[in-house]
Amino acid sequence: MPLSKNKEKYIRSLSEKKYRQVYNNFIAEGTKLAYEMLNASNIVIEAIFAQKGWILTNKDLLISHEALVEEVTQKELKQISQLTTPNQVLIIAKQPKVNLDANVVAKDWSLYLDRIQDPGNMGTILRIANWFGIQHIFCSLDSVEVYNFKVIQASMGAFLRVKVIPIEFDALKQQFPNLPTYAAMLKGRSVFQPMLSTSGLVAMGNESQGLSPSILAQVDHPITIPAYGTHDMESLNVAVSTGIICAALRNPLMNI
Amino acid sequence: MPLSKNKEKYIRSLSEKKYRQVYNNFIAEGTKLAYEMLNASNIVIEAIFAQKGWILTNKDLLISHEALVEEVTQKELKQISQLTTPNQVLIIAKQPKVNLDANVVAKDWSLYLDRIQDPGNMGTILRIANWFGIQHIFCSLDSVEVYNFKVIQASMGAFLRVKVIPIEFDALKQQFPNLPTYAAMLKGRSVFQPMLSTSGLVAMGNESQGLSPSILAQVDHPITIPAYGTHDMESLNVAVSTGIICAALRNPLMNI
Repeated sequence: MPLSKNKEKYIRSLSEKKYRQVYNNFIAEGTKLAYEMLNASNIVIEAIFAQKGWILTNKDLLISHEALVEEVTQKELKQISQLTTPNQVLIIAKQPKVNLDANVVAKDWSLYLDRIQDPGNMGTILRIANWFGIQHIFCSLDSVEVYNFKVIQASMGAFLRVKVIPIEFDALKQQFPNLPTYAAMLKGRSVFQPMLSTSGLVAMGNESQGLSPSILAQVDHPITIPAYGTHDMESLNVAVSTGIICAALRNPLMNI
Repeated sequence: MPLSKNKEKYIRSLSEKKYRQVYNNFIAEGTKLAYEMLNASNIVIEAIFAQKGWILTNKDLLISHEALVEEVTQKELKQISQLTTPNQVLIIAKQPKVNLDANVVAKDWSLYLDRIQDPGNMGTILRIANWFGIQHIFCSLDSVEVYNFKVIQASMGAFLRVKVIPIEFDALKQQFPNLPTYAAMLKGRSVFQPMLSTSGLVAMGNESQGLSPSILAQVDHPITIPAYGTHDMESLNVAVSTGIICAALRNPLMNI
């Protein structure tokens, strides 16, 4: 049965945040992400649109989701896909309910992202957090949404393993008043020196404007990635800085 | 005088590598890059297309380049620009001749990029090298070209301060047979341990395929960015990995 016009319209609408919020779901595409999502314990699948070949080779994977599978032709997939080159399967899933683990937040490192706008940066930061076992990423309400299609694709499945929680900084600090806040700044303690605590929030700011003044005012420990040489230069990309800082947090030589 | 059709066609042709090679030049756009290029000692400007306002406020900067300035309207700039939102000025400049400094290569760290394809990654890696004072980036001949417009824009001027030299790995090793080669691999010495030398090449591979087998066979020291936890996960993005490794190279705690 060919894909109905209404269904096509519905799927396309999910490229917009407002419709993802109305339906409380999101889209992920491609064979790798599909595999991860079908194996994830915290994901409720709503629908699977896939080409015949993929359905046939993934019978075992689909065993408990058979009723949700709709076979589409390559042409139909292209009509609903947000990829330039669609990759066999498109999945719609419910946005999982994400609860923070207060014990982990109090005892380990978490990130706070203030108005990160670029979905590629957000997805890359999710991969970094996943790699370094950072379980919580808090973000300001005006940051790019984790269920933005480009974030989901760029995160390469890391969104399934890292808790992303939109919350304003002040509300988070009210919940964890004793958690020290670190932030990358031009003048601060070198990240090549041991951190001053074994847990805390690391705040990273907007790509062009950096941290909001209201957050800056609450930073306990400014930290700096030392530049080498004295020439003028641009700052590092926010995802790269996050990677370098997360590596420092997990470097046994640089912990108390 | 309005922009001639021939000139427009010529400028547009420079979005393609083959024409950049024929004319031995490249394009950079925007007020920040224009400022950096007009102040760079190693750049020969060929032409400057700019809006009236920018020309008027940058009289001093343009003093030795007046003859090269052509005023364009916003509409004309949009016709020749490769940006979605053109930013007042477009510059055409000669590709500078880049010579390696054998002394620095022998005594310091350099990067070797094998088939990096994404211009955003290449530009970000240039910024990282610039930040950490890595003076030489060697790259395979089939890597994305440094004069690709997206690389130039993503590098944010770092291309003016880092030497990018396309050369095959074997030819480079012939020139520097004693330089040890490090490479990021899944199993290797932790980057959280001191490096085994004070100079060398750090080889980074293609975004999806990693390093070529012929380079892998010549790696002296496999290094690894330790992951935290034991769950399955994707590798880090190549630019993020490069940032973490370059930070390690410059971390006083991690050097001999």
